[in-house]
Amino acid sequence: MATPLDRLIHALAKLPGVGHKSATRLAFHLVRAPRNDVDELAAAVRGIKEGLQFCEECLVPSQTPRCAICDDLRRDRHQICVVEEPADLHAIEKSGAYHGLYHILHGALSPLDGIGPDALKVQELLARLQNSAVHEVILATNATVEGEATASYVANMLRVFEMSVTRLAGGLPVGAEVEYVDARTLALALEERRAL
Amino acid sequence: MATPLDRLIHALAKLPGVGHKSATRLAFHLVRAPRNDVDELAAAVRGIKEGLQFCEECLVPSQTPRCAICDDLRRDRHQICVVEEPADLHAIEKSGAYHGLYHILHGALSPLDGIGPDALKVQELLARLQNSAVHEVILATNATVEGEATASYVANMLRVFEMSVTRLAGGLPVGAEVEYVDARTLALALEERRAL
Repeated sequence: MATPLDRLIHALAKLPGVGHKSATRLAFHLVRAPRNDVDELAAAVRGIKEGLQFCEECLVPSQTPRCAICDDLRRDRHQICVVEEPADLHAIEKSGAYHGLYHILHGALSPLDGIGPDALKVQELLARLQNSAVHEVILATNATVEGEATASYVANMLRVFEMSVTRLAGGLPVGAEVEYVDARTLALALEERRAL
Repeated sequence: MATPLDRLIHALAKLPGVGHKSATRLAFHLVRAPRNDVDELAAAVRGIKEGLQFCEECLVPSQTPRCAICDDLRRDRHQICVVEEPADLHAIEKSGAYHGLYHILHGALSPLDGIGPDALKVQELLARLQNSAVHEVILATNATVEGEATASYVANMLRVFEMSVTRLAGGLPVGAEVEYVDARTLALALEERRAL
């Protein structure tokens, strides 16, 4: 029979980036923490799924039927930036370099994990693009194997539309020194080199 | 009066990436190391500058008047890849993505450090390009402020030649996740996005 401590360590260790060791440390912290703080955390965790809805346009988690970005009339409605997860939207917003709309796929293709095209919100994207004012779809999935496969798949599905389909540039990150860049990124930066 | 140990720590701490702490650790290691090893290291350090010459073509350190790459007839003589330092050449060779020639600038523009255009081997590059078979110069300086300034400067100097001048692509490194990429790189990847 697992003790309450075992169950908490087990549950915490399922969080991304939390190993058994960190989970144990966190669990012991909670054992010692004031009752109020622990109850507050428990309630916050339980509450995260209640009342959670998604923007009916871009599918980002939202308290309202349409999210603040989709509702913002100053955003450029000619561009849709397609990302894997809500966290990617936040990263792009922080960059300040994008002023269009978004679409959250809620994942990336990963056959080994059983995530096929039907698990992604691609049909929802295609439906949005029908009779829309969108001129360009920017595929901003990760530069990982799964992200690249997802970008290819979505690009293929978008062929029926007459709009420009683009992909985030790959190459040297800002501040990178050639000497320390990994070989595959260097090969990509050479291959995709641009005219000056 | 500095002790021999102080002098060694001071000299080691001048190496790139070696702080005072690491220098002290290395120095104490050498204090305990066998006499032979220490003499060998001292001789190797002293010898590095003796007999060191540079390839008369690309200016990479070389035991022979022309380096192995410049002498290799299988290399593509239509391309010159311009790098800051010899270590950059080695990184690009390791990527396996480039088969042309190189040119080592031996530095990057850095006005604050007193490194101006005359400190770089740019005139040597211009001389090489006169009446050459070169079609393309690839500017593979770092993606740092100094590297970008150097690339702009060299590109400007190359305007008199009728050849293509390109720059390494900037953007997401291979394997990068959008969520964790820094804001400036994300802005660059958006700006330089490519059509699919």
